Amino acid sequence: MRYAIGLEYDGSGFFGWQTQRQEPTVQSCTEAALSRVADHQVHVQCSGRTDSGVHAVCQVAHFDTEAVRSPRSWILGTNSNLPPAICLLWMREVDPEFNARFSAFARTYRYRITNRWVRPALDAGRSTWWHHELDEGLMQQAAAVLVGTHDFSAFRAVSCQARHPVREILAIDVVRKQDEILIEVSANGFLYHMVRNIAGCLLLIGQAKQPVAWMREVLESRDRTMCGPTAPPEGLYFLGARYPAHYGLPGIGDAGTTRSWLES
Amino acid sequence: MRYAIGLEYDGSGFFGWQTQRQEPTVQSCTEAALSRVADHQVHVQCSGRTDSGVHAVCQVAHFDTEAVRSPRSWILGTNSNLPPAICLLWMREVDPEFNARFSAFARTYRYRITNRWVRPALDAGRSTWWHHELDEGLMQQAAAVLVGTHDFSAFRAVSCQARHPVREILAIDVVRKQDEILIEVSANGFLYHMVRNIAGCLLLIGQAKQPVAWMREVLESRDRTMCGPTAPPEGLYFLGARYPAHYGLPGIGDAGTTRSWLES
Repeated sequence: MRYAIGLEYDGSGFFGWQTQRQEPTVQSCTEAALSRVADHQVHVQCSGRTDSGVHAVCQVAHFDTEAVRSPRSWILGTNSNLPPAICLLWMREVDPEFNARFSAFARTYRYRITNRWVRPALDAGRSTWWHHELDEGLMQQAAAVLVGTHDFSAFRAVSCQARHPVREILAIDVVRKQDEILIEVSANGFLYHMVRNIAGCLLLIGQAKQPVAWMREVLESRDRTMCGPTAPPEGLYFLGARYPAHYGLPGIGDAGTTRSWLES
Repeated sequence: MRYAIGLEYDGSGFFGWQTQRQEPTVQSCTEAALSRVADHQVHVQCSGRTDSGVHAVCQVAHFDTEAVRSPRSWILGTNSNLPPAICLLWMREVDPEFNARFSAFARTYRYRITNRWVRPALDAGRSTWWHHELDEGLMQQAAAVLVGTHDFSAFRAVSCQARHPVREILAIDVVRKQDEILIEVSANGFLYHMVRNIAGCLLLIGQAKQPVAWMREVLESRDRTMCGPTAPPEGLYFLGARYPAHYGLPGIGDAGTTRSWLES
């Protein structure tokens, strides 16, 4: 049987999602916890791999198992075997052809900035500190240029392994609430470091170090060296992924609540 | 010269505010950092001492020094000597008779509850997890009974050192946003564990383990044994303190922003 799961994590203490030489990673902790409950070695594949220090409000992943447990047992058992900074929000049985990475038709990221003179303490490691005053209006104007289908080579890290650089940005919003600025971006997919490179450009524009029109120049150049510096990982959150309705997965923003659980 | 300061901290890693045998405490870290900048031993007194694991959005404190530094130097220097989980938000020279504890005419606390089936990961240690569904409407009705001047003996910890148990609650609100419930309470002062004991009662009422009318019974009993259990510390935030306007201190909620800094 194939299961889809939703995972929330604070990435501060992890070397990213993917299992590799440096430990701990979110993937290795999740596989270890699920394996304890399944009583066999479990392999998980996620919707969008996150870098070291990047967080998730709801990462989606899938795994296969023949173990028979109630949803309640899977979730309680897995969470009691996960470290405090990771939790399993929900779990659903899915068609065997479901794939957390390839079935997703959209993904959403949030980039969070604490825009004030002093560094954050309550949100240390969970928000990017920018002490120069930012104009969110300029940032929103510049961001709007990116909406649509474009070649995003200018925002693509050198080590990106995607086969082509064309993606469709469905929506991008920049909002301020007091000293917090949120950049929320949805796309059919993202290139490696694409959100952090977009955020890096928006930070320069918000600070008026570059004009709004510069965003179009960067985009049209398709040249990584034209782009701003990659913004730090601690402000980045994987918010969620969207799948065709027939898979019956929770939508972005309604996962893991007591209500959504009771209704499921 | 006497200075007032605003401090933000994540209390998870501290044995409360007050310096005592177990270290680190917020007070000892703050005194060490200010002492480095002042170049002499500094003693700070705060508005409301917080327990182990309790946070502050803006704790207010005062200290005396003859050291002459620009506000910018004080803040940058102190923050570079504080651990990441504490920061100095602002600093103002005040009249020598200002006292962070005795000059405050009101204080506000927030109690934060993650009300969902699974434990929080992003907010682990920064919100109280309650997995039974809570009815925030019942909680708000019960909370309203507490507004006004009352003998709060029923909500007072045995070890409380206050001279009398009468306090005036100015406002108490219970609001829900998705799976988060916030209880915000302002009073002229608080008894030891008063907010956590009120939260403990509201949790029982929200879960329908006690009726709304029970809150009045508890209050009127003046008997601690009638009250619910003390709610955990990780959901509690000291939001701020209010002082007479002539001291010229930042209000609750507008401290530490780049804008408030630029305007000051």
